[in-house]
Amino acid sequence: MKVLGIDPGLQKTGWAVIEKTGYDISYIKCGVVRTSPNESIDERLIKIFNFIQDICQYYCVDKACIEEVFLNSNPKSSEKLIMARTSSILALAKCEVPIQTFCPNEVKKNVTGSGHSSKLTVETMVQKILNIKIEKSREITHDSIDALAIAICGVFAS
Amino acid sequence: MKVLGIDPGLQKTGWAVIEKTGYDISYIKCGVVRTSPNESIDERLIKIFNFIQDICQYYCVDKACIEEVFLNSNPKSSEKLIMARTSSILALAKCEVPIQTFCPNEVKKNVTGSGHSSKLTVETMVQKILNIKIEKSREITHDSIDALAIAICGVFAS
Repeated sequence: MKVLGIDPGLQKTGWAVIEKTGYDISYIKCGVVRTSPNESIDERLIKIFNFIQDICQYYCVDKACIEEVFLNSNPKSSEKLIMARTSSILALAKCEVPIQTFCPNEVKKNVTGSGHSSKLTVETMVQKILNIKIEKSREITHDSIDALAIAICGVFAS
Repeated sequence: MKVLGIDPGLQKTGWAVIEKTGYDISYIKCGVVRTSPNESIDERLIKIFNFIQDICQYYCVDKACIEEVFLNSNPKSSEKLIMARTSSILALAKCEVPIQTFCPNEVKKNVTGSGHSSKLTVETMVQKILNIKIEKSREITHDSIDALAIAICGVFAS
Protein backbone atom coordinates (compact mmCIF):
# COMPACT_ATOMS: atom_id res chain seq x y z
CA MET A 1 0.00 0.00 0.00
CA LYS A 2 1.47 3.35 -1.08
CA VAL A 3 0.57 6.32 1.12
CA LEU A 4 0.99 9.99 0.18
CA GLY A 5 1.41 12.49 3.03
CA ILE A 6 0.74 16.17 2.42
CA ASP A 7 1.70 19.15 4.57
CA PRO A 8 -0.32 21.92 2.89
CA GLY A 9 0.89 25.48 2.34
CA LEU A 10 0.60 28.09 -0.42
CA GLN A 11 4.31 28.92 -0.56
CA LYS A 12 5.50 25.37 0.20
CA THR A 13 3.45 22.18 0.13
CA GLY A 14 5.43 19.28 1.58
CA TRP A 15 4.76 15.85 0.10
CA ALA A 16 6.02 12.34 0.79
CA VAL A 17 5.32 8.85 -0.51
CA ILE A 18 5.99 5.78 1.64
CA GLU A 19 5.07 2.12 1.22
CA LYS A 20 3.71 -0.42 3.65
CA THR A 21 4.55 -4.06 2.89
CA GLY A 22 3.35 -6.38 5.65
CA TYR A 23 4.82 -4.92 8.85
CA ASP A 24 7.48 -2.97 6.96
CA ILE A 25 7.32 0.72 6.15
CA SER A 26 9.72 2.01 3.53
CA TYR A 27 10.60 5.40 2.15
CA ILE A 28 9.95 6.08 -1.54
CA LYS A 29 10.32 9.82 -2.15
CA CYS A 30 9.60 13.22 -0.64
CA GLY A 31 9.84 16.83 -1.70
CA VAL A 32 8.21 20.21 -1.75
CA VAL A 33 6.05 22.10 -4.28
CA ARG A 34 6.89 25.78 -4.25
CA THR A 35 4.82 28.68 -5.55
CA SER A 36 5.88 32.31 -5.64
CA PRO A 37 4.05 35.41 -4.37
CA ASN A 38 4.91 36.87 -7.82
CA GLU A 39 2.45 34.45 -9.43
CA SER A 40 -1.31 35.12 -9.37
CA ILE A 41 -3.34 33.17 -6.81
CA ASP A 42 -4.96 30.98 -9.48
CA GLU A 43 -1.55 30.18 -11.00
CA ARG A 44 -0.30 29.15 -7.56
CA LEU A 45 -3.35 26.98 -6.83
CA ILE A 46 -3.28 25.23 -10.20
CA LYS A 47 0.45 24.50 -9.78
CA ILE A 48 -0.25 22.67 -6.49
CA PHE A 49 -3.30 20.92 -8.04
CA ASN A 50 -1.35 19.70 -11.09
CA PHE A 51 1.66 18.62 -9.04
CA ILE A 52 -0.38 16.53 -6.58
CA GLN A 53 -2.28 14.95 -9.48
CA ASP A 54 1.04 14.03 -11.14
CA ILE A 55 2.38 12.51 -7.91
CA CYS A 56 -0.77 10.39 -7.45
CA GLN A 57 -0.53 9.07 -10.99
CA TYR A 58 3.25 8.57 -11.09
CA TYR A 59 3.45 6.66 -7.79
CA CYS A 60 0.03 4.94 -8.06
CA VAL A 61 -0.89 6.16 -4.59
CA ASP A 62 -3.53 4.07 -2.72
CA LYS A 63 -4.35 6.56 0.02
CA ALA A 64 -3.48 10.13 0.97
CA CYS A 65 -3.21 11.80 4.36
CA ILE A 66 -3.38 15.54 4.89
CA GLU A 67 -3.24 17.73 7.96
CA GLU A 68 -6.30 19.55 9.27
CA VAL A 69 -5.80 23.30 9.39
CA PHE A 70 -6.83 25.68 12.11
CA LEU A 71 -7.66 29.30 11.41
CA ASN A 72 -5.19 31.52 13.22
CA SER A 73 -5.44 35.18 14.16
CA ASN A 74 -4.28 36.31 10.69
CA PRO A 75 -7.31 35.90 8.38
CA LYS A 76 -5.28 36.41 5.16
CA SER A 77 -2.72 33.72 5.98
CA SER A 78 -5.51 31.36 7.11
CA GLU A 79 -7.29 31.92 3.80
CA LYS A 80 -4.13 31.16 1.80
CA LEU A 81 -3.53 27.97 3.78
CA ILE A 82 -7.11 26.76 3.25
CA MET A 83 -6.89 27.55 -0.48
CA ALA A 84 -3.63 25.59 -0.83
CA ARG A 85 -5.07 22.66 1.15
CA THR A 86 -8.24 22.67 -1.00
CA SER A 87 -6.08 22.46 -4.16
CA SER A 88 -4.44 19.29 -2.83
CA ILE A 89 -7.80 17.81 -1.75
CA LEU A 90 -9.33 18.50 -5.17
CA ALA A 91 -6.34 16.89 -6.94
CA LEU A 92 -6.72 13.79 -4.75
CA ALA A 93 -10.48 13.69 -5.37
CA LYS A 94 -9.89 14.04 -9.14
CA CYS A 95 -7.54 11.00 -8.95
CA GLU A 96 -10.08 9.14 -6.77
CA VAL A 97 -7.50 8.68 -4.01
CA PRO A 98 -9.17 8.16 -0.58
CA ILE A 99 -8.28 10.95 1.86
CA GLN A 100 -7.67 10.71 5.59
CA THR A 101 -7.18 13.83 7.71
CA PHE A 102 -5.26 14.23 10.96
CA CYS A 103 -4.78 17.06 13.45
CA PRO A 104 -1.13 18.16 13.90
CA ASN A 105 -1.11 16.83 17.49
CA GLU A 106 -2.44 13.46 16.34
CA VAL A 107 0.41 13.18 13.85
CA LYS A 108 3.01 14.00 16.52
CA LYS A 109 1.43 11.54 18.98
CA ASN A 110 1.37 8.71 16.44
CA VAL A 111 4.95 9.27 15.31
CA THR A 112 6.70 10.22 18.57
CA GLY A 113 4.33 9.07 21.34
CA SER A 114 3.56 12.63 22.46
CA GLY A 115 1.27 15.25 20.93
CA HIS A 116 3.61 18.03 22.02
CA SER A 117 6.98 16.85 20.64
CA SER A 118 9.41 19.32 19.11
CA LYS A 119 10.14 19.51 15.38
CA LEU A 120 13.53 17.89 16.07
CA THR A 121 11.96 14.90 17.84
CA VAL A 122 9.52 14.40 14.94
CA GLU A 123 12.45 14.58 12.50
CA THR A 124 14.50 12.04 14.47
CA MET A 125 11.58 9.60 14.84
CA VAL A 126 10.62 9.83 11.13
CA GLN A 127 14.19 8.83 10.18
CA LYS A 128 14.23 6.00 12.75
CA ILE A 129 10.88 4.57 11.61
CA LEU A 130 11.86 4.68 7.94
CA ASN A 131 15.48 3.70 8.64
CA ILE A 132 16.86 6.54 6.51
CA LYS A 133 19.05 9.58 6.93
CA ILE A 134 17.49 12.73 5.49
CA GLU A 135 19.68 15.60 4.33
CA LYS A 136 17.66 18.79 4.13
CA SER A 137 18.05 20.82 0.92
CA ARG A 138 16.04 23.11 -1.34
CA GLU A 139 14.17 20.00 -2.56
CA ILE A 140 13.69 18.41 0.87
CA THR A 141 12.65 20.87 3.56
CA HIS A 142 11.03 20.56 6.96
CA ASP A 143 7.69 20.53 5.11
CA SER A 144 8.74 17.29 3.37
CA ILE A 145 9.61 15.70 6.73
CA ASP A 146 6.24 16.81 8.13
CA ALA A 147 4.63 15.16 5.09
CA LEU A 148 6.57 11.96 5.89
CA ALA A 149 5.27 12.12 9.48
CA ILE A 150 1.70 12.53 8.19
CA ALA A 151 2.13 9.55 5.83
CA ILE A 152 3.55 7.42 8.68
CA CYS A 153 0.57 8.44 10.82
CA GLY A 154 -1.70 7.26 7.97
CA VAL A 155 0.06 3.87 7.88
CA PHE A 156 -0.17 3.45 11.67
CA ALA A 157 -3.86 4.41 11.59
CA SER A 158 -4.76 1.93 8.80
CA MET B 1 -17.90 38.77 -24.66
CA LYS B 2 -19.49 36.15 -22.37
CA VAL B 3 -19.05 36.72 -18.65
CA LEU B 4 -19.62 34.14 -15.92
CA GLY B 5 -20.55 35.42 -12.45
CA ILE B 6 -20.07 33.19 -9.43
CA ASP B 7 -21.48 33.61 -5.91
CA PRO B 8 -19.48 30.96 -4.04
CA GLY B 9 -20.87 28.70 -1.29
CA LEU B 10 -20.44 25.06 -0.24
CA GLN B 11 -24.15 24.29 -0.01
CA LYS B 12 -25.18 26.56 -2.90
CA THR B 13 -22.92 28.16 -5.51
CA GLY B 14 -24.85 30.66 -7.62
CA TRP B 15 -23.76 31.04 -11.24
CA ALA B 16 -24.85 33.22 -14.16
CA VAL B 17 -23.76 33.79 -17.75
CA ILE B 18 -24.45 37.09 -19.50
CA GLU B 19 -23.23 38.50 -22.81
CA LYS B 20 -21.96 41.94 -23.75
CA THR B 21 -22.44 42.93 -27.40
CA GLY B 22 -21.42 46.53 -28.04
CA TYR B 23 -23.33 48.55 -25.42
CA ASP B 24 -25.91 45.78 -24.90
CA ILE B 25 -25.89 43.34 -22.01
CA SER B 26 -28.07 40.29 -22.39
CA TYR B 27 -29.03 37.41 -20.13
CA ILE B 28 -28.01 33.90 -21.19
CA LYS B 29 -28.59 31.56 -18.24
CA CYS B 30 -28.28 31.33 -14.47
CA GLY B 31 -28.67 28.66 -11.83
CA VAL B 32 -27.28 27.12 -8.68
CA VAL B 33 -24.99 24.14 -7.94
CA ARG B 34 -26.08 22.37 -4.77
CA THR B 35 -24.08 19.99 -2.60
CA SER B 36 -25.39 18.14 0.43
CA PRO B 37 -23.91 17.91 3.94
CA ASN B 38 -24.48 14.13 3.55
CA GLU B 39 -21.69 14.03 0.95
CA SER B 40 -18.03 14.01 2.00
CA ILE B 41 -16.16 17.32 1.71
CA ASP B 42 -14.10 16.10 -1.26
CA GLU B 43 -17.26 14.92 -3.08
CA ARG B 44 -18.80 18.36 -2.53
CA LEU B 45 -15.72 20.22 -3.75
CA ILE B 46 -15.29 18.08 -6.85
CA LYS B 47 -18.97 18.56 -7.72
CA ILE B 48 -18.52 22.36 -7.73
CA PHE B 49 -15.22 22.04 -9.63
CA ASN B 50 -16.71 19.78 -12.35
CA PHE B 51 -19.85 21.91 -12.68
CA ILE B 52 -17.96 25.20 -13.16
CA GLN B 53 -15.63 23.52 -15.66
CA ASP B 54 -18.68 22.27 -17.63
CA ILE B 55 -20.26 25.74 -17.62
CA CYS B 56 -17.04 27.36 -18.91
CA GLN B 57 -16.78 24.85 -21.74
CA TYR B 58 -20.49 24.75 -22.65
CA TYR B 59 -20.92 28.54 -22.82
CA CYS B 60 -17.37 29.36 -24.07
CA VAL B 61 -16.94 31.88 -21.27
CA ASP B 62 -14.40 34.69 -21.94
CA LYS B 63 -14.06 35.98 -18.39
CA ALA B 64 -15.27 35.06 -14.90
CA CYS B 65 -16.05 37.22 -11.89
CA ILE B 66 -16.20 35.93 -8.35
CA GLU B 67 -16.85 37.59 -5.01
CA GLU B 68 -14.11 38.07 -2.46
CA VAL B 69 -14.88 36.38 0.84
CA PHE B 70 -14.35 37.72 4.32
CA LEU B 71 -13.69 35.45 7.26
CA ASN B 72 -16.52 35.81 9.77
CA SER B 73 -16.62 34.91 13.45
CA ASN B 74 -17.45 31.27 12.69
CA PRO B 75 -14.16 29.63 11.61
CA LYS B 76 -15.83 26.42 10.34
CA SER B 77 -18.27 28.24 8.06
CA SER B 78 -15.48 30.55 6.83
CA GLU B 79 -13.37 27.50 6.00
CA LYS B 80 -16.23 25.89 4.03
CA LEU B 81 -16.81 29.09 2.08
CA ILE B 82 -13.12 29.44 1.17
CA MET B 83 -12.97 25.77 0.12
CA ALA B 84 -16.03 26.17 -2.14
CA ARG B 85 -14.62 29.39 -3.63
CA THR B 86 -11.24 27.71 -4.25
CA SER B 87 -12.99 24.89 -6.15
CA SER B 88 -14.55 27.45 -8.51
CA ILE B 89 -11.25 29.34 -8.93
CA LEU B 90 -9.39 26.10 -9.74
CA ALA B 91 -12.04 25.10 -12.30
CA LEU B 92 -11.70 28.53 -13.98
CA ALA B 93 -7.90 28.26 -13.92
CA LYS B 94 -8.08 24.76 -15.44
CA CYS B 95 -10.21 26.21 -18.29
CA GLU B 96 -7.82 29.17 -18.61
CA VAL B 97 -10.64 31.65 -18.03
CA PRO B 98 -9.34 35.02 -16.68
CA ILE B 99 -10.68 35.77 -13.22
CA GLN B 100 -11.69 39.14 -11.77
CA THR B 101 -12.65 39.48 -8.11
CA PHE B 102 -14.95 42.02 -6.46
CA CYS B 103 -15.91 42.84 -2.88
CA PRO B 104 -19.66 42.47 -2.13
CA ASN B 105 -19.98 46.25 -1.64
CA GLU B 106 -18.29 46.93 -4.97
CA VAL B 107 -20.82 44.67 -6.71
CA LYS B 108 -23.74 46.48 -5.05
CA LYS B 109 -22.28 49.89 -5.88
CA ASN B 110 -21.73 49.01 -9.54
CA VAL B 111 -25.20 47.51 -9.98
CA THR B 112 -27.36 49.81 -7.84
CA GLY B 113 -25.26 52.93 -7.29
CA SER B 114 -24.87 52.30 -3.56
CA GLY B 115 -22.63 49.86 -1.69
CA HIS B 116 -25.27 49.35 0.97
CA SER B 117 -28.36 48.47 -1.11
CA SER B 118 -30.79 45.80 0.09
CA LYS B 119 -31.09 42.38 -1.57
CA LEU B 120 -34.41 43.53 -3.04
CA THR B 121 -32.83 46.61 -4.69
CA VAL B 122 -30.06 44.45 -6.19
CA GLU B 123 -32.69 42.02 -7.50
CA THR B 124 -34.76 44.83 -9.05
CA MET B 125 -31.74 46.50 -10.69
CA VAL B 126 -30.39 43.19 -12.08
CA GLN B 127 -33.74 42.59 -13.82
CA LYS B 128 -33.88 46.19 -15.12
CA ILE B 129 -30.32 46.08 -16.51
CA LEU B 130 -30.88 42.73 -18.24
CA ASN B 131 -34.48 43.59 -19.18
CA ILE B 132 -35.81 40.28 -17.88
CA LYS B 133 -38.26 39.06 -15.23
CA ILE B 134 -36.76 36.41 -12.96
CA GLU B 135 -39.03 33.90 -11.22
CA LYS B 136 -37.22 32.35 -8.28
CA SER B 137 -37.39 28.55 -8.05
CA ARG B 138 -35.30 25.61 -6.84
CA GLU B 139 -33.09 26.13 -9.92
CA ILE B 140 -32.89 29.93 -9.68
CA THR B 141 -32.33 31.17 -6.14
CA HIS B 142 -31.09 34.43 -4.65
CA ASP B 143 -27.56 33.04 -5.13
CA SER B 144 -28.17 32.97 -8.92
CA ILE B 145 -29.30 36.62 -8.85
CA ASP B 146 -26.20 37.55 -6.84
CA ALA B 147 -24.14 35.77 -9.51
CA LEU B 148 -25.92 37.86 -12.18
CA ALA B 149 -25.06 41.02 -10.21
CA ILE B 150 -21.40 39.93 -10.03
CA ALA B 151 -21.34 39.23 -13.82
CA ILE B 152 -22.93 42.65 -14.52
CA CYS B 153 -20.27 44.26 -12.30
CA GLY B 154 -17.64 42.46 -14.39
CA VAL B 155 -19.12 43.86 -17.60
CA PHE B 156 -19.29 47.41 -16.19
CA ALA B 157 -15.70 47.13 -14.97
CA SER B 158 -14.31 45.91 -18.32
